[in-house]
Amino acid sequence: MDYSKKALEMHEKYKGKISVVSKVNVTNKEELSIAYTPGVAEPCRKIAENKEEVYKYTAKGNLVAVVSDGTAVLGLGDIGPEAAMPVMEGKAVLFKEFAGIDAFPICVDTKDVDEIVDLVKKLAPTFGGINLEDISAPRCIEIEKRLKEELDIPVFHDDQHGTAIVVVAGLINALKLVNKKFEDIKIVVNGPGAAGSAIVKMLINMKAKEILVCGRTGIIYEGKEDNDELREALAKITNPNNERGTLADAMKNADVFIGVSAPNVVSKEMVASMNKDAIVFAMANPIPEIMPKLAKEAGAKVVGSGRSDFENQINNVLAFPGIFKGALEVRACDINEEMKVAAAYAIAEIIDEKELSETYIIPKPFDKRIVENVAKAVAKAAKDTGVSRI
Amino acid sequence: MDYSKKALEMHEKYKGKISVVSKVNVTNKEELSIAYTPGVAEPCRKIAENKEEVYKYTAKGNLVAVVSDGTAVLGLGDIGPEAAMPVMEGKAVLFKEFAGIDAFPICVDTKDVDEIVDLVKKLAPTFGGINLEDISAPRCIEIEKRLKEELDIPVFHDDQHGTAIVVVAGLINALKLVNKKFEDIKIVVNGPGAAGSAIVKMLINMKAKEILVCGRTGIIYEGKEDNDELREALAKITNPNNERGTLADAMKNADVFIGVSAPNVVSKEMVASMNKDAIVFAMANPIPEIMPKLAKEAGAKVVGSGRSDFENQINNVLAFPGIFKGALEVRACDINEEMKVAAAYAIAEIIDEKELSETYIIPKPFDKRIVENVAKAVAKAAKDTGVSRI
Repeated sequence: MDYSKKALEMHEKYKGKISVVSKVNVTNKEELSIAYTPGVAEPCRKIAENKEEVYKYTAKGNLVAVVSDGTAVLGLGDIGPEAAMPVMEGKAVLFKEFAGIDAFPICVDTKDVDEIVDLVKKLAPTFGGINLEDISAPRCIEIEKRLKEELDIPVFHDDQHGTAIVVVAGLINALKLVNKKFEDIKIVVNGPGAAGSAIVKMLINMKAKEILVCGRTGIIYEGKEDNDELREALAKITNPNNERGTLADAMKNADVFIGVSAPNVVSKEMVASMNKDAIVFAMANPIPEIMPKLAKEAGAKVVGSGRSDFENQINNVLAFPGIFKGALEVRACDINEEMKVAAAYAIAEIIDEKELSETYIIPKPFDKRIVENVAKAVAKAAKDTGVSRI
Repeated sequence: MDYSKKALEMHEKYKGKISVVSKVNVTNKEELSIAYTPGVAEPCRKIAENKEEVYKYTAKGNLVAVVSDGTAVLGLGDIGPEAAMPVMEGKAVLFKEFAGIDAFPICVDTKDVDEIVDLVKKLAPTFGGINLEDISAPRCIEIEKRLKEELDIPVFHDDQHGTAIVVVAGLINALKLVNKKFEDIKIVVNGPGAAGSAIVKMLINMKAKEILVCGRTGIIYEGKEDNDELREALAKITNPNNERGTLADAMKNADVFIGVSAPNVVSKEMVASMNKDAIVFAMANPIPEIMPKLAKEAGAKVVGSGRSDFENQINNVLAFPGIFKGALEVRACDINEEMKVAAAYAIAEIIDEKELSETYIIPKPFDKRIVENVAKAVAKAAKDTGVSRI
């Protein structure tokens, strides 16, 4: 179905999707005196005495900035901060509808890494957390890394970690179904960008040993001629046997294929060359690396994609609302690896063993149990790892 | 009445006063596909083709940033960006409740003029207008001046111009009541800060000829020893006879006293030395330059203050909601002098000649006619002066 026309009509009708509203009434002199001057001076004074009180008397603790420079918006590329607004408003809507979080789009008119880091740091007093969105690689990785180091509020680049968490959640269940373990399997990740990197790092945290990452010119290895900084870093932590070859070579005898790359780059033959009970997550959007139907015909046991019209949709909305909800609830100063792994398990365990099937390894986006389960697990992991502040 | 306790309780109960909500439902797959991917790509594409379409498909056109660095918050001074949040949220609440405008607090962690200008410019893609708030003088004047020059969305420093507009509105009516004209009267402005400067400039636009500005060391004149840049600039456009002396000297035979200074700096004797039918606006908050009762006893005909518990409250809320509403409606690229004067007349004319009295020269904040009247006048002035873009 083509949603373009409906989307245009809706966006024009409502002039965007978010609105800032008041939680209190200001309809008479007394209400005005409490919400504004002179009464408002008292919470100001309390916060001036102790900065942490800002969480008690203001919206900060439930407020997330959705920050983008508009350089990697959906599949549209570098379309600029204004054109990124509908997506960032959409993200804010999802934060609200799925987790009750107040999120606000911040579309910035600069592509400079230092300037974006600097700007977000200066905005930090207003916000309880920062969600980076649709910023092109490798800049997004550098920006997130520096903000995580320099800010004491949680910073999360959803395109990287949201995707990684849901992929891992899906894999936890898919591997259970085919009775394999992370430490025993061979995994191919196609697409050495921001999402691919985050997926690889989480897979290693899950104890995966044999991971091959492929780019357009095949398997990535240390010292490969066309390696950028990101690929070289990936080469160092993957490809333990220093293999060379094409994506097709990589996929031979693989147990898992994870695509965060481009349409139609995987053939039926390539899937057929994988091990028995192969798992294929083809997440290029809107056209996957291989259509689910073809992957199934080629023998894949479990197939997932990024699309809502196929089974097993790998959708970030399963992760980020609960992750921020949990992190904000315990006023975490970071979203660390343990919290991400906890989130993946929390998503996976929504489906109990009896329900688990090759067409149902990932819960549906509107399953109301997810956000609470994820938030609880993330909050606990934050406390267990000492990053919670309450 | 002391509102401190009630304000603390309310702010803690609701954890701040603003919330970001969705204007659309996202409760099923189709709604998700329209508000977010894949449908959202279409408004993004349209804006990428023509940046002006951002006003059609996003919240930008009705979205105002309430920007502060927390350096001059209420009477509390430099309390920092976190402690400024309750006021900026309060301002956002007033924008919403009085004018239906979506306003969002942006409390920034820098006091550097260049950095604030730079940051606001980079945030501009998200917003339809910028309201500067509680930034200390003279920095606020420089920041506003530069942002007005460099941005194509309206920029307004409410502490300066909001106050000036309501003062002029009050004076228009008070002068009508006592049958005097701006061009014939002597006006004393006590307090050569940001608000005082803006008031002086508007009075000159209203054709006032004889204005004396006083600081702590008396009447300001060109070359005065303790003049800073702001005072020297004020000296150049006021004090036509190059007078010297104290505030008491200045007030002799004055028709109007306007205080934006400090508590209790005006005595009954000083008011008694003014011309017949004297007008006294004593706006220091919470304790005025002279209590209204004393000013009346000393012979003042019309007395106004900043307080809601006295008659004739000079309250910015009469101005900024309608000003932004009008400016946003016609997508004005500026809020210029003509728009401010139009706003002052629009506020003044709410009270018709039959109702006008010495205790009713300024309409009440909750008079629902104000915002529409101001918005209409401001929009018209924007069109007439060529700053409207639709």
